[in-house]
Amino acid sequence: MTPAGAGGGDRGPTLAVVGATGAVGTVLLSILSERKDIWGEIRLIASPRSAGRKLTVRGEEVEVVALGEAAFDGVDVALFDVPDEVSAQWAPVAAARGAVVVDNSGAFRMDPDVPLVVPEVNPHAVRNRPRSIIANPNCTTLSMIVAMGALHAEFGLGELIVSSYQAVSGSGKEGVDTLREQLGKLAGTELGTQPGDIRRAVGDLGPYPAPIALNVVPFAGSLKEDGWTSEELKVRDESRKILGLPELRVTATCVRVPVVTTHSLTVHARFENEVTVAQAHEILRAAPGVVLCDDPAAGDFPTPADVVGTDPTWVGRVRRSMDDPCALELFVCGDNLRKGAALNTAQIAELVAAESAA
Amino acid sequence: MTPAGAGGGDRGPTLAVVGATGAVGTVLLSILSERKDIWGEIRLIASPRSAGRKLTVRGEEVEVVALGEAAFDGVDVALFDVPDEVSAQWAPVAAARGAVVVDNSGAFRMDPDVPLVVPEVNPHAVRNRPRSIIANPNCTTLSMIVAMGALHAEFGLGELIVSSYQAVSGSGKEGVDTLREQLGKLAGTELGTQPGDIRRAVGDLGPYPAPIALNVVPFAGSLKEDGWTSEELKVRDESRKILGLPELRVTATCVRVPVVTTHSLTVHARFENEVTVAQAHEILRAAPGVVLCDDPAAGDFPTPADVVGTDPTWVGRVRRSMDDPCALELFVCGDNLRKGAALNTAQIAELVAAESAA
Repeated sequence: MTPAGAGGGDRGPTLAVVGATGAVGTVLLSILSERKDIWGEIRLIASPRSAGRKLTVRGEEVEVVALGEAAFDGVDVALFDVPDEVSAQWAPVAAARGAVVVDNSGAFRMDPDVPLVVPEVNPHAVRNRPRSIIANPNCTTLSMIVAMGALHAEFGLGELIVSSYQAVSGSGKEGVDTLREQLGKLAGTELGTQPGDIRRAVGDLGPYPAPIALNVVPFAGSLKEDGWTSEELKVRDESRKILGLPELRVTATCVRVPVVTTHSLTVHARFENEVTVAQAHEILRAAPGVVLCDDPAAGDFPTPADVVGTDPTWVGRVRRSMDDPCALELFVCGDNLRKGAALNTAQIAELVAAESAA
Repeated sequence: MTPAGAGGGDRGPTLAVVGATGAVGTVLLSILSERKDIWGEIRLIASPRSAGRKLTVRGEEVEVVALGEAAFDGVDVALFDVPDEVSAQWAPVAAARGAVVVDNSGAFRMDPDVPLVVPEVNPHAVRNRPRSIIANPNCTTLSMIVAMGALHAEFGLGELIVSSYQAVSGSGKEGVDTLREQLGKLAGTELGTQPGDIRRAVGDLGPYPAPIALNVVPFAGSLKEDGWTSEELKVRDESRKILGLPELRVTATCVRVPVVTTHSLTVHARFENEVTVAQAHEILRAAPGVVLCDDPAAGDFPTPADVVGTDPTWVGRVRRSMDDPCALELFVCGDNLRKGAALNTAQIAELVAAESAA
């Protein structure tokens, strides 16, 4: 990487955004425009059919260039927000051309030679990247892991049992469009009282195996071994890797709900040591990237409608298990497009840039 | 009670429905019209302002009479679907007049002299009713307890950790109206992407502390000690009482979702003995009142949109915990107005009638 200030005069390192026109890419451009500007050129890369489009970043119009080897010339850090197979093919190409890749797909997350990084939890991990690739966790894991990392540092985490309430934008634009279309068909009706009446009325299910409007769907991702879904296994495997606890007990049940953006999770967290709500409050209040929102008597608990569009992980409904003085129950919300995806990749890129400049 | 066939010739016992015009009462009249007709007179009772209205049950129009002492004259079994304070006042009056009361409010559920009955789980408990009152469990408990009772009978239940996805009809007509009005205001918009945009657009929150359309709300019922809600404590206390396990470890987090009718729950159930998915399938397939719907490869798992309007508890996504050979993960759906309320009271009434006739 060209250190900031070297070569290009006063200009910072060159950043590439691969998948700039997608749902996460769009949020990423907005986040890059809001954060401290440490970058020289920001190059926008997308599929050839999007090449030539102009997008705004940092208040300037930038023309999208087509994905290809030459697109990575001179790039210091490349953020990939593209499907798994595109990352699998092109991230190594970008790395071979000298870029550090921060990849938001599932292609490399469990590769032992690729660190899986959440800057508030394991920032040191960015330094050990033999493939020049750093992976960004799945949005469901990211929606809770910052809060869990802070509690783990104090109490020692022993087990997580989580249930998710996942937003449709986790399925991309197709998910959002499907929910809005189905809601349009159901608005003004009195459906939702007879078996299958919603299914018949909505017709097209989009990317989901059941209607998502006026419904919840206990299936996200693809089916893996023993009845688990890919999404549920990601929460387990990625939590273990990020926290550096390869034996951590983690059980997830992932459920899609009719919310546009912001994933919520209920968490049963068992620690090695006794916990109190007061201690947990103190830790969460002090934790970077976490907002404690826990005064239910005053109506204060996080909900997706209030959290969407914000950066932190919001935590509320903190209770100590009545059966186990070492366990806490929590309700956690995080914007799946921001901290759950674009924001975390931007933060990792900033870590890499800071380290190279140091 | 007048035994069937005695006194009134061939006529069965007299049944009263108190709260006949409410959300649960309406479903109850439909259920009474569908089930085997064992009743003589079915008397409909409601508040004085509803007196004189005519409702249809068993294909016949019946005039609603006003709640009062005389309304219970000659009643053998009285089903109460009214608010807690109305039950607290009037159930003892009906009992004193000779009726066996089956009460769906929260007024008597934890009274040690009142059995809390789920006919598939603890039918014997109806016999021990010193106050002549039998309580019907809360809809959230009822949505999973039939399946849990069947698994407990085989494996011995040690702990339940549940998260709910509760439908708005659990809050009565006001809940349903609120969801439909909010959805009407949001249809055709692109809201749900900025903090508070939904809250500003929907205006009236109805019975909820936050918007319920395009949102999930981690608060149901009222606030009790140590941050728990009344709904969460009901799941704990009632599960223990129904299963006859006063020390059972039970933790619930109750969340309202934008579904009209049918509660869903994720359940982490730990047993005293090792379990397998195959054994659990066998038990659930054979359990009365349970439908096993668990072939995710074929898209088979329960969702509220498919379960609503049906009687059984539907169970899917059965997995054995990867960390504990004694624990199962399940996703359970039950119509909160049918098995969760009206159906279970009708079943209890039938048990009482059968026992008296025997």
